Amino acid sequence: MKDSSIGIGLLGLGTVGTGVYKLLQENASQIFQRIGKRLEIKRILELDQKKALALEIQPEVLTKNIDEILNDPDIQIVIELLGGIEPARTYIREALYQGKHVVTANKDVVAAYGKELFEAATAGKADFYFEASVGGGIPVIHTLKENLAANKIEEVIGIVNGTTNYILSRMSEENVDFSTVLQAAQEAGYAEADPAADIEGDDAARKIAILASIAFNTRVTPANVFVQGITRITPKDINYAQELGYVIKLLAIARDHNGKIEVRVHPAFLPQHHPLAAVHGVFNAIYICGNAVGETMFYGKGAGQMPTASAVVGDLMEIVRNLESGSTGRFPCGCYLDKPILPIGKVHTKYYLRLIVKDKPGVMAGIAGVLGDHQVSIASVIQKRTLIANNEKRAEIVLITHQVLEQDMQDALAVIKGLPIVGSVENVIRVEGEPRT
Amino acid sequence: MKDSSIGIGLLGLGTVGTGVYKLLQENASQIFQRIGKRLEIKRILELDQKKALALEIQPEVLTKNIDEILNDPDIQIVIELLGGIEPARTYIREALYQGKHVVTANKDVVAAYGKELFEAATAGKADFYFEASVGGGIPVIHTLKENLAANKIEEVIGIVNGTTNYILSRMSEENVDFSTVLQAAQEAGYAEADPAADIEGDDAARKIAILASIAFNTRVTPANVFVQGITRITPKDINYAQELGYVIKLLAIARDHNGKIEVRVHPAFLPQHHPLAAVHGVFNAIYICGNAVGETMFYGKGAGQMPTASAVVGDLMEIVRNLESGSTGRFPCGCYLDKPILPIGKVHTKYYLRLIVKDKPGVMAGIAGVLGDHQVSIASVIQKRTLIANNEKRAEIVLITHQVLEQDMQDALAVIKGLPIVGSVENVIRVEGEPRT
Repeated sequence: MKDSSIGIGLLGLGTVGTGVYKLLQENASQIFQRIGKRLEIKRILELDQKKALALEIQPEVLTKNIDEILNDPDIQIVIELLGGIEPARTYIREALYQGKHVVTANKDVVAAYGKELFEAATAGKADFYFEASVGGGIPVIHTLKENLAANKIEEVIGIVNGTTNYILSRMSEENVDFSTVLQAAQEAGYAEADPAADIEGDDAARKIAILASIAFNTRVTPANVFVQGITRITPKDINYAQELGYVIKLLAIARDHNGKIEVRVHPAFLPQHHPLAAVHGVFNAIYICGNAVGETMFYGKGAGQMPTASAVVGDLMEIVRNLESGSTGRFPCGCYLDKPILPIGKVHTKYYLRLIVKDKPGVMAGIAGVLGDHQVSIASVIQKRTLIANNEKRAEIVLITHQVLEQDMQDALAVIKGLPIVGSVENVIRVEGEPRT
Repeated sequence: MKDSSIGIGLLGLGTVGTGVYKLLQENASQIFQRIGKRLEIKRILELDQKKALALEIQPEVLTKNIDEILNDPDIQIVIELLGGIEPARTYIREALYQGKHVVTANKDVVAAYGKELFEAATAGKADFYFEASVGGGIPVIHTLKENLAANKIEEVIGIVNGTTNYILSRMSEENVDFSTVLQAAQEAGYAEADPAADIEGDDAARKIAILASIAFNTRVTPANVFVQGITRITPKDINYAQELGYVIKLLAIARDHNGKIEVRVHPAFLPQHHPLAAVHGVFNAIYICGNAVGETMFYGKGAGQMPTASAVVGDLMEIVRNLESGSTGRFPCGCYLDKPILPIGKVHTKYYLRLIVKDKPGVMAGIAGVLGDHQVSIASVIQKRTLIANNEKRAEIVLITHQVLEQDMQDALAVIKGLPIVGSVENVIRVEGEPRT
């Protein structure tokens, strides 16, 4: 039996670690049939013995000392599920240097330290797989590296954060404000006690950095990503979006413009007929355009115990196939190019703009004039509703621009904010997913 | 240069063959960077010299003799794009026996002769890849074999025929009848002059046979698939579906019920909120449920020159990686089980039923009585509209059942058709995609 099993070291027995353990047990016979090897978890790095007891894991399998895993010659594959940067980064790097293959679900480490970790993998002639780091159970990383490899990838647009998609979906369905839904999401366990990384867009930024690096064969780190969260989205904006034939989604966008990379995370208007518009609740999806395949989309659960475990064990099985066929190292680092990142000011997009202005003749002409001075042309003025504020008649103007340079729009907005006729710029939201002009 | 290139023999320079040729040229430098080898088409089997001239292919590359490809030691990979059963089947089998790796887009051959071809691949120690045979550019076969390999696959539901999806989408949008849209589709090139294989469901049956074989590790051939086409769908049925919160799609369905396989192709009511309901026009999508990953969906163009070429060249690149790492043969035939196929009568599903009946007291009770006698319980009676036929008052009854055994429903229908109170059974359509009860 010994030579038909592969020794595994598991770092962390939290939610996903427990899922991986359960999945390896539950689907054991099928996994064995498919790869001809048994996957045996020999050691688990976990300080909390209670978690192991609940799974009826023998106490001697547990360790508090990483060296008992790194130095064990019977452990060929290490699964890192600690999360966060340290000590995960160090453990992964050391394991790879020592020739142990590594599977991780850790987006933070992969996004920020992918280069260093792939160097360790090359040095140790080891495999480094991280399908679960983006999109949970959705196999988007393998798809980019292998199945769509014949394509020049032009565009990747992801809904890659379930918490924000859940919040925006509920705001749309129930017409309630952000903070109310956030609180409900926290109570239901769909948002963390400290939701900042989700709602401010940083989680999505790490994931799009990983996807952009793979899609465009160039290193993109979270520091390269322009990020804006969803906290300023109001039911009013969502209602206008619906009236105009759009939904509002937090999008993670990466594009290759003739070798220059655009990469950003922000809420956006998306046409209701766009495939991503039908992605509701905690689901994730990644929309990919390639020069041969055209439009594709990959949809599923972007988080959660078992979907994430599905991706981790899928990677594990692939490494075992590589071991069996003597082909480990078949996917080294793919960032063999060094493409410049476009600053956000150089990006072209359309805008939705909602303003409160004084209800006087000539106001619209004044605003249109400023926009025109900055090469921002208006596609449509959509709504004009009168309201009373401070005993003064005000009007709400909603307009959508044609595609413009971000810097021009920002310059125009700075002038508009200072106009005496303008009460306030209520919101500015980019419009995505329409044919590029 | 010689040892950095891989020799390829291309069978057929039709639409997809031309696409493959163009893609290998257009993305050549990227492909080389990604796999470290040049892919060189050394010989092309094609009788029509004009096609080669249009691509500026040297005449000496063309051949009319398959042996010049099969016997050429410099050709390591054969791409079969002839379509149809013969001579494709024989050529693929011979190439594999001789140790040449084969990529094909040929669903007919793979669905009907997969077993024989995998045996040839094993004998020749060759790779046999066919991603393009299902879903065009959508990488669903690799996804099932590799990325979701940790899962027990429970269900695969595909919209895998673009022609029928285009017809049903246009019927829904424009409220026109089947034959009108079919004719328009033929004129626009979205349906073939002989549309039978598409509209009768046979094309989808071949594709779901392939997907079911991979998902459930057991041989499923087109002969195992229950098939019903879309020719009897009317605008009236589509309108009722919309009123009731459904869309009508031609679905290819495969499920594993504790080791027994259900596999069928037919039009179905699908809830509007189901991910597949948003798949419009010529797009395809495959919805897959695994016991760990839960719901996933893979979306894209299911046909066409360049999407199909994307899948073919993706396979080609994977074989080159296998060659480079000495790991060809890493995916032998996966049908190592022999699961029974459930006859259609043993399948459970819900039904939509539209009847014209005499408008008399007791009619509904009579129909409900027959259904009840056959264990078919009614979920809702939706509509009852009065009309006049042959100077007699008639009523249209639409009802949806709970989940029932297909055989019970068919038995009940046979009795209902004979009832003197029933004018006609206008349509019977299965209802899918709701939580199983």
